[in-house]
Amino acid sequence: MLEELKKRVYEANMLLPKYGLITFTWGNASEIDRESGLVAIKPSGVEYDKLTPDDIVILDLDGKIVEGKLNPSTDTPTHIELYKAFSDIGGVVHTHSTHAVAWAQAGLDIPCYGTTHADYFYGAIPCIRNLTAEEIEDGYEENTGLSIVERYTKSDINPKFVPGCVCKNHGPFTWGKDAKEAVHNAVVLEEVARMAILTRQVNPSAGETPRYMQDKHFMRKHGPNAYYGQNN
Amino acid sequence: MLEELKKRVYEANMLLPKYGLITFTWGNASEIDRESGLVAIKPSGVEYDKLTPDDIVILDLDGKIVEGKLNPSTDTPTHIELYKAFSDIGGVVHTHSTHAVAWAQAGLDIPCYGTTHADYFYGAIPCIRNLTAEEIEDGYEENTGLSIVERYTKSDINPKFVPGCVCKNHGPFTWGKDAKEAVHNAVVLEEVARMAILTRQVNPSAGETPRYMQDKHFMRKHGPNAYYGQNN
Amino acid sequence: MLEELKKRVYEANMLLPKYGLITFTWGNASEIDRESGLVAIKPSGVEYDKLTPDDIVILDLDGKIVEGKLNPSTDTPTHIELYKAFSDIGGVVHTHSTHAVAWAQAGLDIPCYGTTHADYFYGAIPCIRNLTAEEIEDGYEENTGLSIVERYTKSDINPKFVPGCVCKNHGPFTWGKDAKEAVHNAVVLEEVARMAILTRQVNPSAGETPRYMQDKHFMRKHGPNAYYGQNN
Amino acid sequence: MLEELKKRVYEANMLLPKYGLITFTWGNASEIDRESGLVAIKPSGVEYDKLTPDDIVILDLDGKIVEGKLNPSTDTPTHIELYKAFSDIGGVVHTHSTHAVAWAQAGLDIPCYGTTHADYFYGAIPCIRNLTAEEIEDGYEENTGLSIVERYTKSDINPKFVPGCVCKNHGPFTWGKDAKEAVHNAVVLEEVARMAILTRQVNPSAGETPRYMQDKHFMRKHGPNAYYGQNN
Repeated sequence: MLEELKKRVYEANMLLPKYGLITFTWGNASEIDRESGLVAIKPSGVEYDKLTPDDIVILDLDGKIVEGKLNPSTDTPTHIELYKAFSDIGGVVHTHSTHAVAWAQAGLDIPCYGTTHADYFYGAIPCIRNLTAEEIEDGYEENTGLSIVERYTKSDINPKFVPGCVCKNHGPFTWGKDAKEAVHNAVVLEEVARMAILTRQVNPSAGETPRYMQDKHFMRKHGPNAYYGQNN
Repeated sequence: MLEELKKRVYEANMLLPKYGLITFTWGNASEIDRESGLVAIKPSGVEYDKLTPDDIVILDLDGKIVEGKLNPSTDTPTHIELYKAFSDIGGVVHTHSTHAVAWAQAGLDIPCYGTTHADYFYGAIPCIRNLTAEEIEDGYEENTGLSIVERYTKSDINPKFVPGCVCKNHGPFTWGKDAKEAVHNAVVLEEVARMAILTRQVNPSAGETPRYMQDKHFMRKHGPNAYYGQNN
Repeated sequence: MLEELKKRVYEANMLLPKYGLITFTWGNASEIDRESGLVAIKPSGVEYDKLTPDDIVILDLDGKIVEGKLNPSTDTPTHIELYKAFSDIGGVVHTHSTHAVAWAQAGLDIPCYGTTHADYFYGAIPCIRNLTAEEIEDGYEENTGLSIVERYTKSDINPKFVPGCVCKNHGPFTWGKDAKEAVHNAVVLEEVARMAILTRQVNPSAGETPRYMQDKHFMRKHGPNAYYGQNN
Repeated sequence: MLEELKKRVYEANMLLPKYGLITFTWGNASEIDRESGLVAIKPSGVEYDKLTPDDIVILDLDGKIVEGKLNPSTDTPTHIELYKAFSDIGGVVHTHSTHAVAWAQAGLDIPCYGTTHADYFYGAIPCIRNLTAEEIEDGYEENTGLSIVERYTKSDINPKFVPGCVCKNHGPFTWGKDAKEAVHNAVVLEEVARMAILTRQVNPSAGETPRYMQDKHFMRKHGPNAYYGQNN
């Protein structure tokens, strides 16, 4: 079972450079096995072209290493907080992809300017607040996860409907039913972030997509009567 | 005959990722056989690297599937409305290419800033209005096609002279004498959209190309006395 | 002799897509043999992946075809006017490269913002005026060449020191001692145009490089006491 | 020993085109052997696809060539001044990478907008002043190095904590413990410069990363209690 999990997480991590989301080692993907509560994640600072499935680290939800000789990603506590709070998700991805980072550094939610966005994210993609000095001093990475959960709770955002966000002055986190889907959503977030920048460049007062159009697009892919694709 | 049509439509679809117009499955190409009135189109949500000519779906102009085991693209009714209204066209392409989407999301026509544009599109590339809630509720994809036809009719635009447009908050549709030419025009539209964004960045008050210069460029390629290329 | 010339022009043309300057067939390179006065140029509208050395067309300076079965590039008269007026040049290139076109469409000279520019172009890269309706009606492509020559003469620009320009609402022409050097300068112009757009984005009131710094950089590469490279 | 040094410098130089930092021959990497005081650097104007380890030039810190048949990079005196002033560094890189050049041409320090920056550069990346006409006339390349050292001294910047800068109207220089790390930092500077441009595009009044967050990120990678990666 763990071999399968490590292989899937390895493959999801290798998609990150393939899709152009990664410079050097700036990113990581994980997946949780909900039955055993074990999380598999990329080791910290290991170059992608040297990564092997055996390097993937296995931890429990307390952050204790169960298997693996390498240090797990420093972002592991963030992944764990997301798994603990969002019970429906099975995979998490963090990157420093260029255009998503631009929104994070700008400190703004990404408005829903069109159907490319609405096909995957229902409403704006939130920009999560900065942590305080105290939150960073003690438990920075856990608190990053908790700040994401805080915003989704406060703003009543469904993490299944908005499967990703950007953390202020930092970068994007995305998730999905497994690591591969979390990678998929990381690609979408980056492309949507890029389109949104260009949209405002063409028309600084561009408006958001009418809500009924967002409903249509999100629901024809993800709603109970979805008719996009082959599985309906 | 259908085998040939399916092969051509398969090949046209495979050009979309080759030209960098496609992320994941966000786009589709179709072609019509005018004699039989049959349309061949990409199946919905099938990944490009798994697509085969056999997966191409054949429908009649009422949207009834004639051949194929997969669901056709959800955008099929849009393609069909364009084939019904624009009797000279033989191929249609839809993508979410980045810079064309930026203009769609900005909600603005793309002005003719130069000869790259004028070589293929005679005048501005129109941005088609949003559909109403009612038009989206009932027959969204048909109505998308009808809104394009409405604008070309109202603004007296010849679809052969302006072989593509962007739909507000959505993305581009292009067409041509066959699927391959529709792909060609999708590449041109994306590049022209990119150049237009950069043009306004350099000079926000940049003017359009003088009409006599547009005439010259469009006509030396497409007019009765065309002298560009080898077929004249 | 012609075989050698055709081979060199073929190879120079093939560098254009290699360096990412070309979409479809939007560009051409030529070279002149000054002794015989013969010009070799790409045929019109032929796709780069189908081009062979045998397809290259040979003309004299009156535009008469001397060898070749295909129509020469429609831009041939522009190349010929440049060869006639600028006696030191041996190669000419025309492209629709994205960022150079943006400046052409913006209708502005490209200021010398830094040493990347000053290493190759001594002073601003001029944007050539639009032709009049009459100039376009009769002898459009010749007049394009003549308008370039007019500006260089009027503004007292040395074509060896400023080996390229952008034509308003159209795109760049570059030249050099042979076709290969003209391609080299086309790559530089595109990159310099891109950097200049980004420079103004960071700082809209960015100033030009001090003249003494431009002198230093241009002259250490091209002056009588040049010390860049291995040939001095 | 020199063979090993030349091989390492050759390999570092070959990473520059691999990472997309180089057009033609616009850049160079060097490394110093601190014991012997010998510097190995790329020869001037040699194309990367023709470069061999044997072409690397060896000089002493007075700029005297010790080994090598080719002229060293014209920027060699700049590298040497950096090695003389910054005793902890072992490698230097100069490029004309696009977005770093944009900041150089804009004449502005690159603010620390996020953790991507803070992971490698502690505080703003300085833009070094223009040289005077006199400084350029006599000893241009040495004076470029001295102007960098002057700014680091004046502004009390630790070159180990801010391993790179941009020179006004010119481009970036970066350094590190060896040539390979200097290349690594050149990649980071280019990506950080690109993100910073996009950040200001999204939000012209974007603020810098809180200092306590910069501390955390720089120190978790480079501080005495670093916990990023596998070597701690």
